[in-house]
Amino acid sequence: MPRYKLTIEYDGGPFVGWQVQGSAPSVQGALMGAIEAFCGERVKVGGAGRTDAGVHALGQVAHVDLAKDWDADTVRDAITAHLRPQPVVVLAAEKVSDAFDARFSAVKRHYRYCIVNRRADLALERGRAWRLPRPLDHKAMHAAAQHLVGRHDFTTFRHVDCQAKSPVKTLDRLDVTREGERVSICASARSFLHSQVRSMVGALVFVGEGRWSADDLSAALAARDRTVCAPVAPPGGLYLVQVDY
Amino acid sequence: MPRYKLTIEYDGGPFVGWQVQGSAPSVQGALMGAIEAFCGERVKVGGAGRTDAGVHALGQVAHVDLAKDWDADTVRDAITAHLRPQPVVVLAAEKVSDAFDARFSAVKRHYRYCIVNRRADLALERGRAWRLPRPLDHKAMHAAAQHLVGRHDFTTFRHVDCQAKSPVKTLDRLDVTREGERVSICASARSFLHSQVRSMVGALVFVGEGRWSADDLSAALAARDRTVCAPVAPPGGLYLVQVDY
Repeated sequence: MPRYKLTIEYDGGPFVGWQVQGSAPSVQGALMGAIEAFCGERVKVGGAGRTDAGVHALGQVAHVDLAKDWDADTVRDAITAHLRPQPVVVLAAEKVSDAFDARFSAVKRHYRYCIVNRRADLALERGRAWRLPRPLDHKAMHAAAQHLVGRHDFTTFRHVDCQAKSPVKTLDRLDVTREGERVSICASARSFLHSQVRSMVGALVFVGEGRWSADDLSAALAARDRTVCAPVAPPGGLYLVQVDY
Repeated sequence: MPRYKLTIEYDGGPFVGWQVQGSAPSVQGALMGAIEAFCGERVKVGGAGRTDAGVHALGQVAHVDLAKDWDADTVRDAITAHLRPQPVVVLAAEKVSDAFDARFSAVKRHYRYCIVNRRADLALERGRAWRLPRPLDHKAMHAAAQHLVGRHDFTTFRHVDCQAKSPVKTLDRLDVTREGERVSICASARSFLHSQVRSMVGALVFVGEGRWSADDLSAALAARDRTVCAPVAPPGGLYLVQVDY
C-alpha cells in the first residue's frame, strides 16, 4: 500500500480548522472527501500541524495510504480537482516510505504571523493579517522575542485545552521584521504547543506597543501561568509556511 | 466649499467596477453612500482611474467637495466607518485646493499585475492573481515589453468601448520581474486606455509562453488592430497601486 506525502496550501477562513470536527467543514475533511471522490477510498489523512479555525497554510504536509499504486502527479492533480471550489490545493505529492509520518517525522515547523501596522481597516487582506493601529516598535519586539528562544516551559503561552504531555519546548527562532507598514513574526521549532505562536505574538504586540518591557515578557515566561499571558493574536494573521523532514 | 483628496484601497471582487452603473454595487457608489451616511450630502466622487469589475486598488485617488469644513482626519475615519463591512477603506484624506481634480490633475498612474506561475490552483490568492501553469520566460517578457515603452498608437491594446479621443499614449515603464513563482508586471504612464494594461499583459504572456517573439509583439503594436491582440488578462490580477500629482 503506497504512502503519499502531500504538500497543501489553504485559506483557513471557511474552515473550523485542520481537524475533522463532526460534520463541520474542516481541511482534513475536505481532503478526505476529495480522495474518496477520486479513488473511492475512505482514508485517514494525517497532518503535520493541526491549525486552528481561520489559520492558513502555504505548506501544510499530510500523508495518506492508498490501495492502488497511483502516479504521484496523478494523485496531486486528482485530489486538487476534486477539492474545487474549496480553497484547498495540493501543491505537490510524492511517494514516501511507510516510515514517513507527516506529524511524527517532522523535524521543524515554520510559521509566519502577518501584522499590518496602520490606522485604516484592511480591504484586501481582511482575514489574512492582523491590523494594529498603534505604532509598533518592531526592534523592541525582536529584542524581547530572543528571551523566548531556546528550551523553556511555555505554559504561559499554551492554550488551556492543549493536549501535549509536556509544556517544555525548544523554540529555534522568533524573528520580528518590518517592511513598511507590514510587521512579520517568523517562528520555527520542532513542534509547538496549542496556540503557542498566537500567544507569543499577542505578548510581543504588548512589547511593541510599549505596554510590556522585555523583562515583563521574561517574567511572563518564568511565571508558567496562562493567566498572565497577553490576549492571543487572532487566527487570520497566522500561516503554516513550511514543515521540514 | 472645501475639497478633499481621498486615497482609497479596495478589493474589486464584489464590485462592478469603480464607476456607478445603475443600482449595481460599485466602489464609487459605496463611497457616495458612506459620505451621505456621514454628513447627509449626496455628492459626486471623482476618481483617478475607472477600474473595471474585479480590479483592485492599493492607492486609488478621488476628490469630493463637502459643504462643511471638516477636519481631514474626521473625513477619513467617518467615511471608512460608514463603508463597513464593504471592502473599501480610506487610507488618507487631505484638504486640497479647488484646482485639484483626481482625474485631470494626475501626472502618473502606476499599475501592477500579479501572475502566479505554477501548476496548482490558487487557494489563498483566488481573485487576486492570475495563475498560469506553463513556465513563463520573464526575461523574454521584459525584453519584449520595452518595445511598448514610449509614445505609440495603442489601438491594438485598447478595449473596443474605450472612450478616449486618441489611441496615442506615452507608456513610461513596463517592467517584468520574477520572485519565485510570482511574476509581476509594473506599468506606469500619465494615463492609460481602457483595458490597456490587461491587454498588454495578455500579449506579454504570449511572449512568456513562447507563442510570440518580441517582433510579433512589435508587429501587433504596429498593426493598430484590436483583433490581433492576445486574450486580455483577467481583472483579479490587476492593482491600481499609486497615482502621482
